[in-house]
Amino acid sequence: MLADRAAALDAADPLAGARAAFLLPDGVVHLDGNSLGALPAAVPAALAATVREEWGRSLIGSWDAPAGWAPHGWWSAPEAVGELIAPIVGAGPGQVLVTDSTSVDLFTTGSAALGLARARDPQRHQLVTDVDGFPTDRYVLRSLCEQRGLDYVELPVDAVAGHLDDDGPSVALLALSHVDFRTGRLHDLAGLTAAAHRAGALALWDVAHSAGVLPVDLDEHRVDLAVGCGYKWLNGGPGAPAFVYVARRHLVAGLVNPIPGWASAADPFAMAADHIASATIARLRIGTPPILSLRALAAALEVYRGVDLRVVRAVSLSLTGFFLKCLAEVCPALGVATPAAATERASQVSVVVPDAPRVVARLARRGVLADSRPPDLARFGFAPLYTSHADALAGALALAAVVGPAATAGRRGAD
Amino acid sequence: MLADRAAALDAADPLAGARAAFLLPDGVVHLDGNSLGALPAAVPAALAATVREEWGRSLIGSWDAPAGWAPHGWWSAPEAVGELIAPIVGAGPGQVLVTDSTSVDLFTTGSAALGLARARDPQRHQLVTDVDGFPTDRYVLRSLCEQRGLDYVELPVDAVAGHLDDDGPSVALLALSHVDFRTGRLHDLAGLTAAAHRAGALALWDVAHSAGVLPVDLDEHRVDLAVGCGYKWLNGGPGAPAFVYVARRHLVAGLVNPIPGWASAADPFAMAADHIASATIARLRIGTPPILSLRALAAALEVYRGVDLRVVRAVSLSLTGFFLKCLAEVCPALGVATPAAATERASQVSVVVPDAPRVVARLARRGVLADSRPPDLARFGFAPLYTSHADALAGALALAAVVGPAATAGRRGAD
Repeated sequence: MLADRAAALDAADPLAGARAAFLLPDGVVHLDGNSLGALPAAVPAALAATVREEWGRSLIGSWDAPAGWAPHGWWSAPEAVGELIAPIVGAGPGQVLVTDSTSVDLFTTGSAALGLARARDPQRHQLVTDVDGFPTDRYVLRSLCEQRGLDYVELPVDAVAGHLDDDGPSVALLALSHVDFRTGRLHDLAGLTAAAHRAGALALWDVAHSAGVLPVDLDEHRVDLAVGCGYKWLNGGPGAPAFVYVARRHLVAGLVNPIPGWASAADPFAMAADHIASATIARLRIGTPPILSLRALAAALEVYRGVDLRVVRAVSLSLTGFFLKCLAEVCPALGVATPAAATERASQVSVVVPDAPRVVARLARRGVLADSRPPDLARFGFAPLYTSHADALAGALALAAVVGPAATAGRRGAD
Repeated sequence: MLADRAAALDAADPLAGARAAFLLPDGVVHLDGNSLGALPAAVPAALAATVREEWGRSLIGSWDAPAGWAPHGWWSAPEAVGELIAPIVGAGPGQVLVTDSTSVDLFTTGSAALGLARARDPQRHQLVTDVDGFPTDRYVLRSLCEQRGLDYVELPVDAVAGHLDDDGPSVALLALSHVDFRTGRLHDLAGLTAAAHRAGALALWDVAHSAGVLPVDLDEHRVDLAVGCGYKWLNGGPGAPAFVYVARRHLVAGLVNPIPGWASAADPFAMAADHIASATIARLRIGTPPILSLRALAAALEVYRGVDLRVVRAVSLSLTGFFLKCLAEVCPALGVATPAAATERASQVSVVVPDAPRVVARLARRGVLADSRPPDLARFGFAPLYTSHADALAGALALAAVVGPAATAGRRGAD
């Protein structure tokens, strides 16, 4: 019985206790943490305190008044919250900053990375990225290349290594997403970063869909720069600020922020006529930081304190593996776009269904939250900190009820 | 007696009732609304509802579920909150968007404005701005020029009209702040915009220090593009998102967003391979909007509903005029950097004091919140919606107590 199996797996789940740290709505199975993380229980009170006390009572005094969540005051929050994310992505201190949106951060880090690469070798003129990347990555990176007169090269990820072998000396920057947002396929961050380096290029990774559900190990794999999202697996709330990572070896000589707002200055409050860039990761700050959003994210990140990402990864694979098993039993003919191999699976499962938006709407009416991506994918996300195996089974049963147990669809590989 | 005069002025203040819409801390005289607006009473509950209900319970369903503050759901919030700001800055519908920070918005609007101007006349190669502008404006606009190979020209504002007369055909864009952030001097937005247009240039205004305290009338004065701040006079909370204005005649042919994130696409959720830009002001969106910050700002803006900016301006001038009168009586030798003429005064008064940071710190210990700007200015901001004439008097008396009634300082004109 799948239900017995789910209960047994949940009973053995080393992260089962973390579920209590979230306010999950009654009667809802939330399988969409890859789009919007659930509300951590600590957020409402933390945000209310920042609003009523820090803003309402202390007013501007809070910019430099130490607070539990921002030890040197609001002004330092982008770095302070960055330090909460650092262990989640395998980064030593001083390399992660929470600022702006993923899209803006792709622009700044993409520009900065191209600048670093071309300073080393001005002959390199290509930015190589994934033809199946998230639209914002492709739009922003393409625009960056147009603005700089560089070549924008889109390839299937499986063709990247070959391209680096063939045309490596032309490549300034390899910019990829760790996870295919449609299929949930996990790309080889370590191998492709090493391949980029062998070719003399730099590597920029978008870890929006991996940070928080598996070890990313940015330092260990010698990633050059990275960006990630605050509102998916990190549960920072809708539109939470994003984060950037810059490897220490690139901090800070030659690192140029293309939007050098006052917050990127070494001494912003000197308000000097000439911009003297910060000598720390703050060089990638832009404007006044969004304190309310930062506070929500800071409170949300507390659920990761002391959590071992290897354990998270094990639970994630157990959840997605069990969901795949459930699908195979309750709607065996359904196509699955997510790779079967655990090494190529992030923490979502995408199933191929015609008219996916309608299927997702019908699932929602049954209390199962998933989402859809064009043209024909229904995505189910599994957040190891709050998703249970019982949730996975409920999702599969609801899907079977909606599409019918005999449903078939063109089975697609992730490749 | 100044106290009697303050009481009489407060009794006649047509906006006195608005003060109850703010949660002002006991024992504090908040004269810093030009830096961080006070907490509107509606914000805590509104934000809590968005956190607990819209995020916590409805989760991703809130992106397109109509809510009172975002009629078409979270996704439409940048435009919806923009419509709340539009009447405050004298803009008809469809021209204001709340997005990102002022610094990022200066980059996008500055880039877009240069693109529009140079499409009309590719010979124009100058961006002209104020040598006394806010640092972020200068840093970002200078960087934009460097990236595009254009000439960045800094002038005193009083020299701008002459420069436009002499070298007008070279000027692509005039980019100015409506108010000098140090002195509080109000620049001639109408006259300088007209002068820019006569010279064939476009005009971009930073109205961060004027929006909300005086009629800005962007449409009436045919401003081309503008940016403004959400957390000063608009009371959106620390680091609240900023806003952009684009005149309808520039929407949207030729308007290029230099950071074309997915939210700037005509149909973001189509996730198309090629970026097809939105045909509305949404073209200047970038990434996923910061919902929690937007909701706080939306709630804060309710205090402006139905308020006549001409009345706000009258109260503002009454407050700053009374403060100047108090200073003249209680510390007559103190230098004032703010113009005496009402037509050149925004809603702050800047006093010249050696070691201004120490003076401001001593004022704070007496419960008077002001701030300082290098090298020697203490700034006092007067928010017509919640500052009283009694507050102005208290501020002047505290200043006299701190600096001594006989204090003198080099009297500086704003020019």
